[in-house]
This record gives sequence, structure tokens and C-alpha cells, in this order.
Amino acid sequence: MRNLTMMTDLYQLTMMYGYWKHGMKNNRAVFDLFYRKQDDTTAHAIAAGLEQAVEYINNLRFDENDLAYLRSLNLFDEDFLKMLSTFRFTGDIDAVPEGTVVFPSEPILRVTAPIMEAQLVETALLNIINHQTLIATKAARVCAAAQGDSVLEFGLRRAQGPDAGIYGARAAIIGGCDATSNVLTGQLFGIPIKGTHAHSWVMSFPSELDAFRAYAETFPDSCMLLVDTYDTLKSGVPNAIKVFDELRANGHEPIGIRLDSGDMAYLSRCARKMLDDAGYTKAKIFASSDLDEEIIWDLKAQGAAIDVWGVGTKLITSKNNPALGGVYKLCAEEIDGVIHPRIKISENPAKVTNPGKKALYRLYDAEHHKAVADLIALDDEVYDPTQPLTIFDPENTWKSMTLTEYTMRPLLVPIFRDGKQVYDLPALKDIQTYAAEEINSFWSEYKRLNRPHRYKVDLSKPLYDLKHSLLAAYSTHKE
Amino acid sequence: MRNLTMMTDLYQLTMMYGYWKHGMKNNRAVFDLFYRKQDDTTAHAIAAGLEQAVEYINNLRFDENDLAYLRSLNLFDEDFLKMLSTFRFTGDIDAVPEGTVVFPSEPILRVTAPIMEAQLVETALLNIINHQTLIATKAARVCAAAQGDSVLEFGLRRAQGPDAGIYGARAAIIGGCDATSNVLTGQLFGIPIKGTHAHSWVMSFPSELDAFRAYAETFPDSCMLLVDTYDTLKSGVPNAIKVFDELRANGHEPIGIRLDSGDMAYLSRCARKMLDDAGYTKAKIFASSDLDEEIIWDLKAQGAAIDVWGVGTKLITSKNNPALGGVYKLCAEEIDGVIHPRIKISENPAKVTNPGKKALYRLYDAEHHKAVADLIALDDEVYDPTQPLTIFDPENTWKSMTLTEYTMRPLLVPIFRDGKQVYDLPALKDIQTYAAEEINSFWSEYKRLNRPHRYKVDLSKPLYDLKHSLLAAYSTHKE
Repeated sequence: MRNLTMMTDLYQLTMMYGYWKHGMKNNRAVFDLFYRKQDDTTAHAIAAGLEQAVEYINNLRFDENDLAYLRSLNLFDEDFLKMLSTFRFTGDIDAVPEGTVVFPSEPILRVTAPIMEAQLVETALLNIINHQTLIATKAARVCAAAQGDSVLEFGLRRAQGPDAGIYGARAAIIGGCDATSNVLTGQLFGIPIKGTHAHSWVMSFPSELDAFRAYAETFPDSCMLLVDTYDTLKSGVPNAIKVFDELRANGHEPIGIRLDSGDMAYLSRCARKMLDDAGYTKAKIFASSDLDEEIIWDLKAQGAAIDVWGVGTKLITSKNNPALGGVYKLCAEEIDGVIHPRIKISENPAKVTNPGKKALYRLYDAEHHKAVADLIALDDEVYDPTQPLTIFDPENTWKSMTLTEYTMRPLLVPIFRDGKQVYDLPALKDIQTYAAEEINSFWSEYKRLNRPHRYKVDLSKPLYDLKHSLLAAYSTHKE
Repeated sequence: MRNLTMMTDLYQLTMMYGYWKHGMKNNRAVFDLFYRKQDDTTAHAIAAGLEQAVEYINNLRFDENDLAYLRSLNLFDEDFLKMLSTFRFTGDIDAVPEGTVVFPSEPILRVTAPIMEAQLVETALLNIINHQTLIATKAARVCAAAQGDSVLEFGLRRAQGPDAGIYGARAAIIGGCDATSNVLTGQLFGIPIKGTHAHSWVMSFPSELDAFRAYAETFPDSCMLLVDTYDTLKSGVPNAIKVFDELRANGHEPIGIRLDSGDMAYLSRCARKMLDDAGYTKAKIFASSDLDEEIIWDLKAQGAAIDVWGVGTKLITSKNNPALGGVYKLCAEEIDGVIHPRIKISENPAKVTNPGKKALYRLYDAEHHKAVADLIALDDEVYDPTQPLTIFDPENTWKSMTLTEYTMRPLLVPIFRDGKQVYDLPALKDIQTYAAEEINSFWSEYKRLNRPHRYKVDLSKPLYDLKHSLLAAYSTHKE
């Protein structure tokens, strides 16, 4: 992986310099990375990107070119540049494993480090986690709409640059896609890649039938034909069946056909009947044409006979909402050994942050093993799940619930300790399996694509009290 | 730059193999890269990404790991893999220079190469050009709304992965932004970078005033203070003025303040008055808070006293339309020395492609030196601008116009010839200047942010006739 140390906002470096110049370099800070709900598409998210975040942290170092460039800005003194030349990340990072279902305002990742280090890494961590979490979440929505059908990621050509294609495809796999068209992502992460031919293939032969025959000859055991170049039902499907007959006569079984334009509900049903009548009941129908979860949902509701969905632009860019909007907020500082919780005030109550170093728990009911609520608590609180637990809504505190038969799982796990990676990165396939289990651990009410029921994310009493005491102190101070 | 040879769709490789197996490897193909209008945001575009496309082509080669991976797919034979081991791009590429204003259906880039090469490069070329053109276009819209005010690109943390941040910032500079917060983009492309401090800086000090003082001490000659951490008008601006007074007493002049929340129209006017009253008439007011061209336009209409606009998420993701939708279509093939124009038929007339190897011209009226129309013609047509030229609307052929006093500029320039780069890549600063001239060469009616007047993009008579003869042949063939 490239060294992305310089991929940061300039203000991180100017702030680092300021801390350095003001004797604050030994202050330790705690930052939370979390997102705020924007609309139903972000009512919950599938956390992703941790692997690349870990690589980024492990590769952090300024080389001679970097230092020369920073020197040329005439902003920093030589002592500071010298410090940068040996700069490494020495702090702690905790994060939810990739594939974890997370909710707005929950810490997805927590950095505890000297303030200069914690500040430098903000931009890249946000960039990486925001992007992959966005795409994994979108992919999970698309796969939910496909209701068990296979979904393939086809968006590389429309992705926002190479990384958006490469890591977007990785995130799509986490979210539930079965394969990608992106060869490099397949190579990098050992995941299935798929693809057959384009319209240009058909156009390069004297006739569609010639093109299909040539393709079948090249790939007799993985023959999938794109049937809409001229006329899907009058030319494409009949020609495909002709070639399938020839394949079968030679002992090969075709994979199926792909539709890429026209009305998919109607065309797929007609094509299905034609294939069935010709004896190809197992031939699959692939669809690819500007699809997303809304269109797939509607096509399935109208009885489209589609087996596999190839989803491109709208998945790889998360077109309806192309930014998760994750933020990275200071929540505590340790100065001369004393910990000070920090809160970011805002006129907008939803933007007031949760202060202090925090833990995140998921509560499951003992009977169904389904998630019932999440709890954000202070890191040093101790819970005993054999005792009843009362949780309450942080905005409407009169809404409370007492759990008696439940289990409790901490979601944040140690990733770095004192700058050393202490977490074994799982294989992508295992992350995908874990994400599916995670999604399965929630009642379907919470996963509805539109207007999902609101899942409870409550604050512990000590955290709630801390937050309100800081808000009260702020109000008093202001008067 | 990384080697992105494997960053392609699998079907490019399966088609290459098919061409190889069917004795078609010596066929030469011509492909056009162009986009179709989706909405007003794509009524015209600022072409960008050519530099990275050139680097990609120059770096094309499969290494041992790549070949081993391809072998493991069990799709290709050893002869084919051996051919890939010495694979290089040997064709021609023509393209419009970066920063050129382009319109839907105009070739932005044209590849003329052996069909296997032309096919392989499709995905990466689309990925790179789609992305940067999208962001340069969005940036140009934002800068148009800012009406001469400075615009800064601040979106790295919300970009869709590292490349989207790095090359998105590059594209934003082409589109007219003055600087970026992204240090790596500054380093790579020698462009100005900007940034001061975040809320976390203010929160790390006992008081806002302490934080401002510390910042001013660190950067006495580039002091820009973020004033909304607690209360913009009651705390932030008065504290900033206090620190500005101290700076001035020591012989330094502050840069200004930054607003990041609340109502920007009201707050900026109040802050302006407070700064002016305190004698800081030259202090600038920066704004950054979920801005885009619509919000900037409205804020300016309401008399916001903002001098510099920091634009993040909505620019770096082109949030309202995060994909340009560029395509790459076969338009001609040379088989055994004979050129065959190719057309892609579609039920949707807007999706029928323009056949043949084509040139692209821009026509300027001699009096105002403003662009009056573009002309897509066949590559071998010869024009004499001393003679009158009649152009006509390809969809409504009765709408025609005869130009007498005009100049004519070919927009496509040679980039590669026989696999060798023949084009000197301009510096980013020069591309930005050229883009500004390009934008300036159009009447403002065509540049309106909403409902712009439709700019004429006409087809030459020979191209029109070729297209319709191929369509007629297709209809006859179908019957």
C-alpha cells in the first residue's frame, strides 16, 4: 500500500505545530470516529475500512521528500521537522470489527494517543472509514432488496477514481455482494470475479449469432451471453438458444443470458419462458442496467424473472447519498496525568457530542438472541449481565426499559496498543460471513429500506450525567 | 503512480482472449469516450484526468504476479498469458486537453488501437476521466456561484477513498478552486494548500481566548481563527478581535475568521460589522459548512459578507450527481485494411451512437470570439473556414445556421502515436488558466446553473448521412 502520511488536511499539521510550540505535545487525547444520521440510508451502517486504516497507521512516516515539501511551505521550524522525521504512531486504537452493524453516534473507532498523533491521523481515518462504510452499507441495502438473489458489483468505470473502484468493490463484498467485475480487487483480496462480454464484442462480428458462437467456443463451460445488442426477444434470446443447443450437443451446459436495457420485468419473464420452453430451465438470467435497491425491489414485486443482479454506478458511488458524513471528535484529554472529558457544544442538540472515553455494548435478548438495544457507556463502568439493566432514551429520558434475561457484548476491540498492531486482520470472506451474521442478529423491522423502526442507542446513567453536568457548566460559564 | 493494469473489468480480459482465439487480434478498433446528459449539471463539462490516463497507459504491463493470478482463474491458455507478459499499448490516442469545455456526446478521448488493447484500457480510462471530469465540472459550478470569490477545496475526509481525495482536489483546481486543504495533492501537483485550526484546537485550551492567542503566537502572519466553537457573535468574534489587536500591537496583520455553523448570511454580516468597527476592514471572512453552488448562490443573493468559501463534501463527491456516466463505444473497425464504421443501436434514440472515426471542432464567431457551436465530423473531412459553413441540428434537421465570419478549432489533439506519448502534459496551473479561458469563451446563457440555454452540437452532413445509412441498413436487415 502507498504511504498516505501526507494525505491529511493542512490544519492537522498547523495544529500539531501549535501543540508542539505550546508544550502540549505530551497531552494525550481521545477522539471518537462516528457518523450522524442523514436519512433512512444511514439509519444503520455496516462498518468497513478497518484493514486499510490499519495499513495506513502502520505505514505512517514522513520521508525526505515530504519533509522538504513541508519545509518549503515556510510554516514550520527545523525542530518540528526533525521531530516529524522520526514520527511514528505510538497510541492506542480500538474499533468495531469490519462488518459490524453500527448506528448513528456510536464510536466506530476510538483513538487514544498523544494529541499530535491523534490529530494527524484524523483525515485519512475519516476518508478510509467513511468511504468503505458508505459502500458496504449501500451494498447491504441492495442485497436486502435482492432477497437472497446473487448481487454482483460492476461499478469500476463509474467509481470516483481507482481507489473508489478497488476498495469500493471490497466494501461491496463485505455488504453482501457475491463477486465483482474488478480484476484488481479480485487479485488483492482473493474474492470471486465475474464477467463475460460487452456490446462491442457483438458489434465486432458480422452477426450476433457469429459473436455468440465465437464466445461459446472460447468459454464453453462459462457461457453467458449479452442478448440486447439488437433486439432482446426477436434476436438476442433466439440466437442464444441456438448457440446453447450447439453447446449442449457438444456436452456443455450454458450459464445463461444477460439483459442490459429495456423493461426488465417484461423482458425477463419472456426470456425465462423462451429458455424454459427450449429446455434451459437452469439457465440463469442476469440483469444489469442502472440498478439500485429501489429498482430491484420494484422489479421483484412485479415478478421479474431475474436470478442475478449486476449493480454498477448507483452502488459504487452510493448515488442517492454519496457521503456517510462521519466525523472525528475530541472527547477527552489527559493533561499531566489527569483526564478531562471534552464536549463539543452546538446550537443543534443532535450535534452535541458525548464526552469522555467510552465503551459500546450491544444487548441481546436471551430468548431470541436478537439485538434489542445498544448502550454507550463510559469506559470504566462495570456491568454484570446477571443483574437487571435499566436503559433509557437519552433524548426522552422518561422512555426506559429494564432488561432481565439478556447478554451483553462489547463492540470495540483493541486494534493498536502503544503503536503496535494487536489485532489479526480477518480474511475478507470471513468479514463477509460475520457481516451477514450481524445483519441477521437484528429484527427485520430495523432493516426496512424505508422508514425502518428506530433502534435504541442509549447512554449509560454515568455518561448521561457527565454530559449534562458539562452542558450545565457551559451554560453557567456563558452567563 | 501505481501500475493499474489489472484494474479492469474481467470481461475485457475474456473478450481479449476471445479475439485472440478467433484470429481477430490484428483488427484495429476505434473507440470514443463521451458522456450523455443526465441533468443541468452535465449540460456541459470541464474535461479532466488526461494526465493520469497518460500515466496509466505508459505503465501498462502485466507482471509475474498478475500472470500467476490470471493463470489461477483457469480461463486462459498459456499462449495468451505469454502474449500478456509482453503486452504494451501500441495504438493512438487523441483527446481534448484537460480544462476543455465539452458537451454531451462529444468525444473527449478517442482510442485507435488493436482491438485487444483498445478493449483492455476501457475500464481504467472511463474510471479516471469520469471521476476527474465530474469533479472539475462540479468545481466550475461552485466557482461560478461564488462569482469571483475565492473557493477552497476542503473535502478530503468525505471523499470516496484516497484517490478520490487526491485527484478530486486536482480536478477541483482545474475547475477553478484556488487551493485545497489536502497536503498530498499540494505536494504532488505544486498547488497552494490552506488550513488553520479545528474546533478540537479550541477545546484543547482552558478557554477560547487562550486557544486563539496560542494560534496567533504560532502563526502571527497567517492568523485565521475559527470563531464558532462556543458562540460566534458573543464569544468567537470578540475573542478574535482581542487577539487581532494584540497581533497588530506586535506589528502583524491577521488574515481573518472562519464561520462553520449557524446562519451564514446573518452571522457573516454581523461579524463583518464587528471586524470593520474594530478596524479590521481587510480581515477576510471564510465560510465552510456543507456548502455547494446552490447555497453559495442563495447566500450571496442575501448579501452574505463572505469572502472565501471552503467547500467540502458536496464538491468532492459531486453530491447531487456523483457519476458523470461517461461511456466508451466502438465506432469503427479496420479489418484487413478496410475500415468499417460501427453503430450501437438502441430503442432510445439518445443512446444511438455516432459511427466512424470522428473529429470535433469548435466554431467561434469572428466578431466576439465566443463559441457559437460545436461540430462533430468524420475525421477525413476537410474544412475551409474562409468559406461559409452551414450546420444543422442532428435531431431537428430543419434547424440550420450558416456561418460566414467564423474561426474553427479542432479540439482533439494527438496524445499517443503508435504507443508513444507525443503530448507534453501541461502544469496544473496552466490547465487551470486554460479552463478559465475556455469557460470565458462561452456566452453566459450557456453557463446558467439551472436551465442553461442549449449549446449547439451539430453533426456534419457526411456523418449524419453515414449514421442514417447504417440505421436504414439495420432496419432493412431486421425485417
